[in-house]
Amino acid sequence: MSASTPSGRPNDMSPEEFRRHGYQIVDWIAGYLHDTRDYPVAPAVQPGELTDALPRSAPNGPEPMERILEDFKTLVVPALNHWNHPRFHGYFSVSASGAGILGELLSAAVNVNGMLWHTCPAAVEVEQVVMGWLRQWLGLPEVFFGMIHDTASTSTLHAIGAARAASDAGLRERGAAQGLVLYTSAHAHSSVEKDAMALGLGRENVRKIGVDAEYRMSPTLLEAAIAKDRQEGKRPFCVVSTVGTTSVTSVDPVAEIQDVADREGLWHHVDAAYGGGAAMLDENRWMLAGAERADSLVFNPHKWLFVPIDCSAFFCRRPEALKLAYSLVPPYLSSQDNPRAVNLMDYRIPLGSRFRALKLWFVMRSFGRDKVCAVIRSHIAWARELAAEIAADPRFEVVAPAPMSLVCFRLRGTDDDNRLLLERLNESGTAFTSGNVLDGRFVLRIAIGNIGTTREDVLATWEKIREIAAGL
Amino acid sequence: MSASTPSGRPNDMSPEEFRRHGYQIVDWIAGYLHDTRDYPVAPAVQPGELTDALPRSAPNGPEPMERILEDFKTLVVPALNHWNHPRFHGYFSVSASGAGILGELLSAAVNVNGMLWHTCPAAVEVEQVVMGWLRQWLGLPEVFFGMIHDTASTSTLHAIGAARAASDAGLRERGAAQGLVLYTSAHAHSSVEKDAMALGLGRENVRKIGVDAEYRMSPTLLEAAIAKDRQEGKRPFCVVSTVGTTSVTSVDPVAEIQDVADREGLWHHVDAAYGGGAAMLDENRWMLAGAERADSLVFNPHKWLFVPIDCSAFFCRRPEALKLAYSLVPPYLSSQDNPRAVNLMDYRIPLGSRFRALKLWFVMRSFGRDKVCAVIRSHIAWARELAAEIAADPRFEVVAPAPMSLVCFRLRGTDDDNRLLLERLNESGTAFTSGNVLDGRFVLRIAIGNIGTTREDVLATWEKIREIAAGL
Repeated sequence: MSASTPSGRPNDMSPEEFRRHGYQIVDWIAGYLHDTRDYPVAPAVQPGELTDALPRSAPNGPEPMERILEDFKTLVVPALNHWNHPRFHGYFSVSASGAGILGELLSAAVNVNGMLWHTCPAAVEVEQVVMGWLRQWLGLPEVFFGMIHDTASTSTLHAIGAARAASDAGLRERGAAQGLVLYTSAHAHSSVEKDAMALGLGRENVRKIGVDAEYRMSPTLLEAAIAKDRQEGKRPFCVVSTVGTTSVTSVDPVAEIQDVADREGLWHHVDAAYGGGAAMLDENRWMLAGAERADSLVFNPHKWLFVPIDCSAFFCRRPEALKLAYSLVPPYLSSQDNPRAVNLMDYRIPLGSRFRALKLWFVMRSFGRDKVCAVIRSHIAWARELAAEIAADPRFEVVAPAPMSLVCFRLRGTDDDNRLLLERLNESGTAFTSGNVLDGRFVLRIAIGNIGTTREDVLATWEKIREIAAGL
Repeated sequence: MSASTPSGRPNDMSPEEFRRHGYQIVDWIAGYLHDTRDYPVAPAVQPGELTDALPRSAPNGPEPMERILEDFKTLVVPALNHWNHPRFHGYFSVSASGAGILGELLSAAVNVNGMLWHTCPAAVEVEQVVMGWLRQWLGLPEVFFGMIHDTASTSTLHAIGAARAASDAGLRERGAAQGLVLYTSAHAHSSVEKDAMALGLGRENVRKIGVDAEYRMSPTLLEAAIAKDRQEGKRPFCVVSTVGTTSVTSVDPVAEIQDVADREGLWHHVDAAYGGGAAMLDENRWMLAGAERADSLVFNPHKWLFVPIDCSAFFCRRPEALKLAYSLVPPYLSSQDNPRAVNLMDYRIPLGSRFRALKLWFVMRSFGRDKVCAVIRSHIAWARELAAEIAADPRFEVVAPAPMSLVCFRLRGTDDDNRLLLERLNESGTAFTSGNVLDGRFVLRIAIGNIGTTREDVLATWEKIREIAAGL
């Protein structure tokens, strides 16, 4: 047994093949991004239709990449709901920009795992650097430690878990504390309650605090709820405020909630998963006022910063609490101590992670702060214009203020009328959006946030809505 | 205000720019994959070195993509630890194959979120289909529901959370049950204990069951531990067995542990994150014998199935327990009921997910089962050959059986000698690996699993080790 010098990758596709298929895919994407409007936003498929068109078993032998790409185009694409379409207005509107897509491509190729500094210095340090950049864009002080998770659900899970550990250092060993109570607004995202449930806190111990007329959590009601729980022997430990609620993008009074958290000794987590984008604009600095004193904050660059899903930016003022909750180092993962060598695994549940920071680095650099802000500013302006148009049409009503780029409205009519309107809009292929129940009534939501969206797209969506409404 | 037909994406790079930069990156990757051996596996950088070379703030104006790519090549690449290098033998050896990279590229471009069937039928159905294919490759019955998570830590977290919910349906509401106990082997991955800690179960309630001479969990000791806990009023609820432990790739007796779980009413989760790859070979079917009766199982295609990180395949026989633990549907996420329309968010903590199944679909089709098995078989054969070489060298000893593709060994000498050997090997750039403490002694691990690895690579690594050892 002796060694000679190997070369290439005999078991994988050749460089020539990779280049050929890579070019084909790059060409397809270049065309797709330019011509996305030619696709119906939502697909006209029935549940199981794609499944039935695919083989029930994987092949035993290799299939040529041409055939796989052909199936992608003819079977998969027609069953896509095109989140990257300029008239995808459902949930929150997101974007994969060109730079973000190319960053993800490089990340897949190098395939590193930044669990420890030692396992990939580049992945860890670029993540720390771009999180520092983003911290500045959000106006947070340097004391905040930043890291990237997959989604806001996961970031908030880590925040609540750290809050629990900080409230009682022995829980890590003993587990299962009784009576811990978490507070959030009645309009908080469902992930807050789900995270609490997943962590074993119990839904009964999540208090949904009432909101004012503009759907903002009431600090007075929050204090009253905490007082009542204390009287009953409960242990309030965490409050989650929201900057940009999913239902109406309302902005909780972060500073006042922080005052309550300070007085009561609660961990304060700020969910700015969507709203952080709006808050980066100078004229919207008020939205995050007070967050600089909070314990943690989440903002999703995969929502309103043109980065492909998944990329959730999590900031925490108390990284030692994250470590208390999540650090566990077996001998096969030990590494040398160095204050500049951050070991990401110590601060999170997943051991490994891919190089997500690369796409964020690409996007922040290729756009720059001014352009990012200009695009977000235009989304907000178009949302205001749309809200004014809707308000001016006597058949419709705008049901909530639109401080960001989400417009909530309804046809003056029954819930069934509105459900039908939504269904027909989505079936039209012209635009796609989602509904909600607000104050007991079914409403429609138009979110504007895709990098490709133009004022004309917003108007085209509105024209389609009026056209469908006229025919109901 | 009136609408005209928009075209293109005025705020993003043009199709011509995307094509140009896309080609440049594809060219770089094609070269990188072919010439990875020209790079030192691990970088020669100090903590903070890359950070200091990068600006402390993001730019205000746009930077040309050429400059960003140049920085990627000159600053980022030299600080990479090349996990995709054929002589990266640390932790578990992983691969981004060409097909997997191209699948991830398309996934980033379409940027869909498969949280509900309705939000992207293609992402949900392709995931269900490929998980069905993988289920067949692993020899699991059809009753297992499959879904993709980011990492095995997350898959196992979901398993343990579902096990807890299944043990007491009221926990979802009440939270915080006392006395729940989880069992796993002393050689289980640290993620099992970390997951239990994160879920609020407490480390004290994780029992690490002893192993036999080949590092396999003892069903007898497991039963004894359960009996003792029951006597003390504890509530045993879950056991996690491992097929391919991180320290030595030992294979727990899954069928016997399942028998115990059946008798005792415990949820049985099988961690085959790495070992599932070996178990796909006909000659290794024994490794997963009994898993067809388990409650859940994790296998990571991003470990030993040539799929870029992240892609963790999670199978569960009791999806209703996942729903009990994790389903929570706010009105803005409601959708129509249809048994063929799977809503992934109902079975997990993260609301959203990107189209991870696409890269798995690309890999399974472009390789086909026979080639996948042939490559894995060669990795196992080279590991045996390497183990024999090491055993034949009087300066070294193999410290554990090598049933898969991991060889654990040490220089006959002090721990410091072995630490120095590891350090010098990694500094050499020729190969990279990681260490462990096994039975109180420091040992080295050589994992073979990269798609580009050849027999000659393994021999080159071994030659380098002998050369360093001779100079110590």
